[in-house]
Amino acid sequence: MPLVVVGSVAIDHVETPVERRNNLLGGSATHFSYAASFFTGVHLVGVVGADFPQENVQLLNSRGIDTSGLHTVKDGKTFTWTGRYAPNMNDRETLEVELNVFGKFDPVLPEAYRRAKYVFLANGVPAVQLKVLDQVPGRRLAVADTMDLWIQTQRDDLERLMRALDGLVLNDSEAKMRTGSENLVAAGRAVQAMGPKFVIIKKGEHGAMFFGEHETYVLPAYPTDRLIDPTGAGDTFAGGMMGYLTQRDAFDAETLKTAMAYGIVAASFNVEGFGLERMQEITREDIEKRLDKYRKMLSF
Amino acid sequence: MPLVVVGSVAIDHVETPVERRNNLLGGSATHFSYAASFFTGVHLVGVVGADFPQENVQLLNSRGIDTSGLHTVKDGKTFTWTGRYAPNMNDRETLEVELNVFGKFDPVLPEAYRRAKYVFLANGVPAVQLKVLDQVPGRRLAVADTMDLWIQTQRDDLERLMRALDGLVLNDSEAKMRTGSENLVAAGRAVQAMGPKFVIIKKGEHGAMFFGEHETYVLPAYPTDRLIDPTGAGDTFAGGMMGYLTQRDAFDAETLKTAMAYGIVAASFNVEGFGLERMQEITREDIEKRLDKYRKMLSF
Repeated sequence: MPLVVVGSVAIDHVETPVERRNNLLGGSATHFSYAASFFTGVHLVGVVGADFPQENVQLLNSRGIDTSGLHTVKDGKTFTWTGRYAPNMNDRETLEVELNVFGKFDPVLPEAYRRAKYVFLANGVPAVQLKVLDQVPGRRLAVADTMDLWIQTQRDDLERLMRALDGLVLNDSEAKMRTGSENLVAAGRAVQAMGPKFVIIKKGEHGAMFFGEHETYVLPAYPTDRLIDPTGAGDTFAGGMMGYLTQRDAFDAETLKTAMAYGIVAASFNVEGFGLERMQEITREDIEKRLDKYRKMLSF
Repeated sequence: MPLVVVGSVAIDHVETPVERRNNLLGGSATHFSYAASFFTGVHLVGVVGADFPQENVQLLNSRGIDTSGLHTVKDGKTFTWTGRYAPNMNDRETLEVELNVFGKFDPVLPEAYRRAKYVFLANGVPAVQLKVLDQVPGRRLAVADTMDLWIQTQRDDLERLMRALDGLVLNDSEAKMRTGSENLVAAGRAVQAMGPKFVIIKKGEHGAMFFGEHETYVLPAYPTDRLIDPTGAGDTFAGGMMGYLTQRDAFDAETLKTAMAYGIVAASFNVEGFGLERMQEITREDIEKRLDKYRKMLSF
């Protein structure tokens, strides 16, 4: 059962206190797809320009990611993001954003994608995310990520989106901004009251919090000291989680928690290299081994 | 088997965004003792002035805390701390500190305390903490808390102390400052290399990290939306942890992790009221129930 993801495919230039790396394959849908591909087939919907290297497409295809929904604009340029991480590797500064073809992204899903049961809307304009949902009327589970920018400028669309979603993933600063609450437990519950059946607050190096109808819980990040590049960690988390849910074709409370754990473990690998480099070194077996360690870490 | 704790006993004035409360029973040894008293007998060593309300002593005694090591300086005043919490309830500003009798604190342990096997040095001057250790030569487990102030001013004593300790508890900002590392995993390992058999980094609302000879792990905080006053949460954590270790008379890896969990659960109650107010409402049974919830929260 394939999972559909709609979002950005980008070229990233990343500067950390240690190193600067240019022309990395990035974007929310990319990181999401790559992580999800360890669990299920993925249908990717995105847009790139004529400059987008063919080897990137091949890399995604080699993971079983269907890129027939990746549209190439012949006279356009690919979305580019340039960012710099602070010494704490948590705060980052966006040095440059060129939306290019992603600025006019109007996703049209290939016919084969429209029967999807599992859909993830990686971060993007809420109005566009809503249009995607209209194209998959038979979906069983739709989850979206959100982003500060839209919270500030497109409140109405975002509110409509929230009521249409099953799950929403957002980061801690977004949750605080959205609700005006500094307490993340209160913030998570307040966001959940806006519509989604469940809400997940990503806390970066501190893990993630889950808010469902009947339960609230926190899982820590898997501790790694090989923190090379956190770019895409949140999307990798979501990809691991949604990939597992799709593979299991279930999203009851128990399965959701295990899916969160898979997402956290996937993200812990992602940050151990620039772009997708570390993810390219690992197998599902490595994910299982680390999940096992993570499970033991949390049992007493 | 009693647990000896040496540290501050104070009167706190606490201001949160919601409320200001004066004359709360506070201090590191106080919060520690109260939490530990749910698990074991506690011998408290500290100093107060003639102004210290007798009802505070009675409260501690009612929990089975032996205060024969709590020295009263007849012509002195009790240590007073006044602080204000930021809206995030994590950052705080010290508005006023009057060390008073605590400034000349020179702990002399009653004879009966000197045969203790379990010792906790709540935060204080490293030189004083070292003198305490000399008085309990037959100890099996000595753990200390540390504090920014001493890190800056008494590096040598602190380093000697670290080599004499079994365990060190410190908070995330201290660990970063002490090691110059922004990555907490790397920081924890670096602190452990300075001497202690194990190191625990407290991350406030994000839980705590453990660094032992053979393992590193993270446990999240127990999520509560009744965050009233975080003062003493770190000492309550340490009190729950050390109390459990003393009760079990063991500190193998398995027992240490369970003890961490008890500490985290104890701290989650402490923050739900000003000073010791919430702790006074609960029983060991409440701690067990929440520990059970916490264990379930972390299993998948």
